[in-house]
Amino acid sequence: MSKFIVIEGLEGAGKSTALHHVERWLREHGVAQIELTREPGGTPLAERMRAIVKEVHAEPLAIQAELLLMYAARVQLVETRIKPALAHGCWVLGDRHDLSSQAYQGGGRGIDAGLIRQIKQAVLGDFAPDLTLYLDIDPEVGLSRARQRGELDRIEQEQLDFFVRTRQRYLQLAAEDPAIVVIDANQSEPAVAAAIGKVLEQRLCIPG
Amino acid sequence: MSKFIVIEGLEGAGKSTALHHVERWLREHGVAQIELTREPGGTPLAERMRAIVKEVHAEPLAIQAELLLMYAARVQLVETRIKPALAHGCWVLGDRHDLSSQAYQGGGRGIDAGLIRQIKQAVLGDFAPDLTLYLDIDPEVGLSRARQRGELDRIEQEQLDFFVRTRQRYLQLAAEDPAIVVIDANQSEPAVAAAIGKVLEQRLCIPG
Repeated sequence: MSKFIVIEGLEGAGKSTALHHVERWLREHGVAQIELTREPGGTPLAERMRAIVKEVHAEPLAIQAELLLMYAARVQLVETRIKPALAHGCWVLGDRHDLSSQAYQGGGRGIDAGLIRQIKQAVLGDFAPDLTLYLDIDPEVGLSRARQRGELDRIEQEQLDFFVRTRQRYLQLAAEDPAIVVIDANQSEPAVAAAIGKVLEQRLCIPG
Repeated sequence: MSKFIVIEGLEGAGKSTALHHVERWLREHGVAQIELTREPGGTPLAERMRAIVKEVHAEPLAIQAELLLMYAARVQLVETRIKPALAHGCWVLGDRHDLSSQAYQGGGRGIDAGLIRQIKQAVLGDFAPDLTLYLDIDPEVGLSRARQRGELDRIEQEQLDFFVRTRQRYLQLAAEDPAIVVIDANQSEPAVAAAIGKVLEQRLCIPG
């Protein structure tokens, strides 16, 4: 049965590389149909919502508006791409999903966790990834990598303590949910790839 | 003390004309500083959210995404324009506000009313207009007026029964909330203007 797998982590944690590892692993294990998504975004309309959230504006974006835009983009992606793909037997591989809102808007921005859960429950119900790989990185290391990549978006321009709080929330949520696995992303790239392969073997029950 | 007054109603109910009446009435009664807003929209970022909601797209917009975009635009407007204006002693005159989401997304689209209230409470708390004038019109009459004005937006393209349900919800909510006054918008324009003036005199306690 097809599954929804998500890669999570701070800026510079190595999500893109990890997504390639997961995709390759799945193809090597006979999974042919894989849809790649990213959040916020992943559909033309959700990408327009992403632009509002990510671009640097003269007008400050209210944190409640940021939160609702994240969920608007998410429910648009889930309803128009992820659920239909899963229903057709495709696997879905996501660059970020709901955990990002809980970590960034909850931990980073300090929005009440219960309120975020309420909104999530209201629009997504019990829909959730089958497996989330959280790439855990030292925020200073991640940020310096992200800076080297080029210009930072509106959220990436936050101060270090924002990312420290975001990471803390990621780790806390991972500790509470067995469907979230923490990968140490401070390791070398081959070590991260090996760790990802091991988790996929343990969790996905695909005969090798 | 400055107040937040909202005009509500179906397409073609005469909201723009009513807004002019209210504005003129306020100026005649010595209110000098009036901010005009519209929803969804009213700030550059909220207008971008409005465009996603109102334009006709090839991609269907999920009804939950529509609802969240309405609230994202609303909280952006409330936090960046309406609350600051009221705090500076300006009156605010709004073309639509929260009642629209309850009527259109609740009544028209059929989203659970409790869920909408939850989202509203989560992001807006107890913030509410001091007075709402709901212009009640026969949906068929309103729609034919809207059609005469030109091309219909994505929401205006809904079928008649959508607007019949929306109107029913408007009337139901007005019956439950003393801060909402129903104006019969099937009357002649001078009669509507007179009815609006009478309500403002009764409700606003401004010495004439």
